[in-house]
Amino acid sequence: MPGGVRPQRRASRNSTLLTPGNRPTEDGHPRHGPAPHTPVGATRTPTLRHRPPQAPPAHPSEATLLVMTPSAPTPAYRRLSVEERRSQLLDSALGLFAHRTPEDVSLDDVAEAAGVSRPLVYRYFPGGKQQLYEAALRSAAEELQNCFDEPRDGPLLARLARALDRYLTFVDQHDTGFSALLQGGSVVETSRTTAIVDGVRRAAAEHILRHLDVADPGLHLRMTVRVWITTVEAASLIWLDEGKQPPMPDLRDWLVDQFAAALAVTAARDSQTAALAQKLADDL
Amino acid sequence: MPGGVRPQRRASRNSTLLTPGNRPTEDGHPRHGPAPHTPVGATRTPTLRHRPPQAPPAHPSEATLLVMTPSAPTPAYRRLSVEERRSQLLDSALGLFAHRTPEDVSLDDVAEAAGVSRPLVYRYFPGGKQQLYEAALRSAAEELQNCFDEPRDGPLLARLARALDRYLTFVDQHDTGFSALLQGGSVVETSRTTAIVDGVRRAAAEHILRHLDVADPGLHLRMTVRVWITTVEAASLIWLDEGKQPPMPDLRDWLVDQFAAALAVTAARDSQTAALAQKLADDL
Repeated sequence: MPGGVRPQRRASRNSTLLTPGNRPTEDGHPRHGPAPHTPVGATRTPTLRHRPPQAPPAHPSEATLLVMTPSAPTPAYRRLSVEERRSQLLDSALGLFAHRTPEDVSLDDVAEAAGVSRPLVYRYFPGGKQQLYEAALRSAAEELQNCFDEPRDGPLLARLARALDRYLTFVDQHDTGFSALLQGGSVVETSRTTAIVDGVRRAAAEHILRHLDVADPGLHLRMTVRVWITTVEAASLIWLDEGKQPPMPDLRDWLVDQFAAALAVTAARDSQTAALAQKLADDL
Repeated sequence: MPGGVRPQRRASRNSTLLTPGNRPTEDGHPRHGPAPHTPVGATRTPTLRHRPPQAPPAHPSEATLLVMTPSAPTPAYRRLSVEERRSQLLDSALGLFAHRTPEDVSLDDVAEAAGVSRPLVYRYFPGGKQQLYEAALRSAAEELQNCFDEPRDGPLLARLARALDRYLTFVDQHDTGFSALLQGGSVVETSRTTAIVDGVRRAAAEHILRHLDVADPGLHLRMTVRVWITTVEAASLIWLDEGKQPPMPDLRDWLVDQFAAALAVTAARDSQTAALAQKLADDL
């Protein structure tokens, strides 16, 4: 389900005061300290799960321009930290994977988009495009899971609608990457990428069941929720295929109604689901 | 959606009277004539679309035993025709791919199951496991599409239920292969295998629209039918994942009811679908 990208995220400025120990050379080799793929002086992990608070983002090349401006008293060529460089490369990759199929993105493209050399990309992502793609996918998966965060207040279907709004906005912003990922058959698809996508599906199901206050879902309810999640995925793919028609709010409302209808069908043969369907009806 | 297999199909006996031109040597090389992957004296194509009428199937090894029995006046070691051998190898592969993931099937396994040497498997399928898998998948896709054939008589939802019965029986018989194919991330998954699976989905949608007597489906109806087809796929996968529970007839009825419910949701915002929903209601 994640489509591959976060073009919005940029390397941060928060490492201007670099110690010599974590300042990389221009070819990406750190002068001292651990290898570039081990973050230095930053807590951001490869899965991007625990990103520290950062200053407002700025494009690294802008930062470089700033410190190289003639008005600076001592023009110091500012080098990116290992962590900044990794962020920059990942962001460039994410931007490309969002709107092209993985097959149509080369490491040369990533290097060009980031304004660096191809060997530098390899230095940070020695696994090449596959490693970059998987890192981008993990980042996108995390972003998608954030879409599901919704306060447990107010009518249940309204909460679902808000989560769907965020999800569909993500789909809209990562159209080609989303399609390529979920349609399968891509050269970069592996059991690892499948596991990342399945993790997002599982998280979505858990969120829904938590909002429904169900701790121990039975067979029928489990199947109904899991199938509806694939309904959302399939409808998103078809929506992209249909040139993003119908308009997003219509698609969202249709999906919410499909959820209620699917629950009603299951309610006719399962008492746990019947209780939930009643709750949804009372809730409106 | 196709899971990979047809263990039932066996090489036919209909080539007992082989001419020297199409009798292969034991290592699979034909003595004369075209290469083994070009059917000789048989119209069966690689996609198995136009299989000619054949005598009742028999396991090739039985046939060999028959002609080698001491009661035969002149014991002649009977060799399989190129076409028979190809069928035999494909059947063995199909049987393996049905109940194991592609990763867990080796060419040695196929050779062993067919009782032949590994080089002979390569002789017939020079592309190795990938080629065998794709041939098996094409065969399974054809079988699945046959599931959708249903006379255009009687209530619409009853027709849908009968087609689903056949589809779910296929899923039941090809469980592991079906899951591996649709869950993605397999080493044998390519844009070709994805295209085969998409072809089955497209055929399913066309069948449904034909039964509904819709020549020109609008956006809303198209999406509803296509999404319901993924509902069937997803429910089949979850059904396998849940140890084939609920019982197959319950799953079938649930899917039929989900179809009617999905159509009703769409009918509320689309006049073409509203007319169909009315037709379904009148039909019962």
